[in-house]
Amino acid sequence: MKCRVCRGPAIIDLPRHNANFCSEHFTKFCRDQVEKAIADFDMLLPSDRVLVAVSGGKDSLAVWDLLLELGYRADGFYIGLGIGDYSDTSGGYARRFAAERAEPRGARLIEVDLVDTYGYDVPTGARAARRNPCSACGMSKRHLFDRAAIEGGYDVVVTGHNLDDEAAVLFGNVLHWQTEYLGRQRPVLSAKDGFPRKVKPLVRLTEREMAAYCIVSGIDYLVDECPMSAGNKHLGYKEALNEIEVRSPGTKSDFYFSFLRHAADRFASGDEADEADGAAADAARGALGPCVRCGSPTSTELCAFCRLVERAGGHPATGPVVQPVDITPRPSTTPPRPDTTGTRVP
Amino acid sequence: MKCRVCRGPAIIDLPRHNANFCSEHFTKFCRDQVEKAIADFDMLLPSDRVLVAVSGGKDSLAVWDLLLELGYRADGFYIGLGIGDYSDTSGGYARRFAAERAEPRGARLIEVDLVDTYGYDVPTGARAARRNPCSACGMSKRHLFDRAAIEGGYDVVVTGHNLDDEAAVLFGNVLHWQTEYLGRQRPVLSAKDGFPRKVKPLVRLTEREMAAYCIVSGIDYLVDECPMSAGNKHLGYKEALNEIEVRSPGTKSDFYFSFLRHAADRFASGDEADEADGAAADAARGALGPCVRCGSPTSTELCAFCRLVERAGGHPATGPVVQPVDITPRPSTTPPRPDTTGTRVP
Repeated sequence: MKCRVCRGPAIIDLPRHNANFCSEHFTKFCRDQVEKAIADFDMLLPSDRVLVAVSGGKDSLAVWDLLLELGYRADGFYIGLGIGDYSDTSGGYARRFAAERAEPRGARLIEVDLVDTYGYDVPTGARAARRNPCSACGMSKRHLFDRAAIEGGYDVVVTGHNLDDEAAVLFGNVLHWQTEYLGRQRPVLSAKDGFPRKVKPLVRLTEREMAAYCIVSGIDYLVDECPMSAGNKHLGYKEALNEIEVRSPGTKSDFYFSFLRHAADRFASGDEADEADGAAADAARGALGPCVRCGSPTSTELCAFCRLVERAGGHPATGPVVQPVDITPRPSTTPPRPDTTGTRVP
Repeated sequence: MKCRVCRGPAIIDLPRHNANFCSEHFTKFCRDQVEKAIADFDMLLPSDRVLVAVSGGKDSLAVWDLLLELGYRADGFYIGLGIGDYSDTSGGYARRFAAERAEPRGARLIEVDLVDTYGYDVPTGARAARRNPCSACGMSKRHLFDRAAIEGGYDVVVTGHNLDDEAAVLFGNVLHWQTEYLGRQRPVLSAKDGFPRKVKPLVRLTEREMAAYCIVSGIDYLVDECPMSAGNKHLGYKEALNEIEVRSPGTKSDFYFSFLRHAADRFASGDEADEADGAAADAARGALGPCVRCGSPTSTELCAFCRLVERAGGHPATGPVVQPVDITPRPSTTPPRPDTTGTRVP
């Protein structure tokens, strides 16, 4: 098995590209795929101040690493979710990456802890709101990504969703023809109605490739799945797609990118908006005002996040959860920036 | 496990309906589902002369049986495909069903043999045309269904496609977002441009249910899959959907029927017709004339079927492949009709 580029010994085969790569050219392949995704979907400008949602897993650490490698001004944002040992361990991976690989490149890690800041954790929140834990967790994270980006002065939130994630979500939406979600499933959500732009630069790369990228790059990451995700339907959808991918390499990528090219627009009419829930659907209806408690855009008096915090017996944040980012333009070469210390807020 | 209706011992559980049934009420359930599909999609009128495509497998024999049971004037149509022992055996099952269960109810079996009538068989045709056997076979069968219905004076062709078949085809079309096919995937295709109406009354019933229906009803059918279908991608799609169905009963049915309700129309615009091939796509473009050899509607001088026959070293049919059906109205009660003998053509 030889590297497609240099004919040296390959360390990974990529059947859907009919290619094998050595470490060096695999790393370059990953960078190229991220650059291509960014260019194809107009995800980022070189001047953007980027906030990367970091969990301590392979995808979020890899995307942070790749964006720094490509010269973007990208800070990390870690949320302590209060999921027992899992959260302690994942935070450790995020902090270690920040100290060893991000701070030397002028970036910092911002942290918000749900228990410290809001007096609740995801398990309690999910139970109190009678929501599926993944749903309560996802809603909490999205709220905090939005709030952190706006308060911190970031132009864009980056998440580490990879091709497997996006294909599995698409599969789930297609299985039940959730047309409103299908109309919004894109690798870029534009800034709108007080929400920051959100982008997914890993959509051209798979889970397996991100694990390999971390290993090859010496990035230590949390391998375990979240203990609360057991039984999550998307894991089943991933398995189903993987079985098909093994028989017909390239199917997963074709499923997702053909959807974007040939089908997504057909669901974007918004005539199903009345079926959906959530702030983005509210935004589609153009009926948003500020939450009376936190100021986030919402169609109700109290936003869904503040309702969850209240039901879980928590309290509002006592001030901004994120300090504004240093807006000094970054030099064109990439020496470490002056503010290299990880900032823990609060 | 008790029957939902009579509380007697159940012989089958149907997780997606959260129900169990005894033999009698399972048979009634199948009839009800067929009636509901026919009514929901305006498939058949009581006066229709129906031609049922019969392979000797469970689905086609079950649908023929169910339509006769419901009082439709439904003849069977069997095509000898020349696939060695498989064809000999499958023909035997079709003829046995006709003699034992159809003819006593006033229906007849019409047969056309590819070798006798056209001088080629499916394996030779597929090789000669360098087509996947399932593709060459499907095209040949669709051509003969159309021709037989038109020549025989039938109003509608019935096929035994069940929910698993339709969901698997939908899955395949969605995996590659074949928008033109998605726009045409419906349980009813209206008569148009010289093609007869085609309907699928089993779309509300699964493979497993059709096997159970045959067993319970004493219908002997060919269990083996066609030997040429090995590696057919739809078998993989069925497996993938079945794994999801086991975890979430009802998903398969929701996938298919939600598509029809919420998504199919979005693909029906016809603006992708230029991507597709085949007579139906030609029809969508409105560019059809008669094939110079067989008279079937086609956009080329020689239709795709006649080209296949020619490449496979076969010859045109020497006359009509099906004699016109007896158009005497059937009495409202259902005694055997006078013409109870199976007619073999030629």
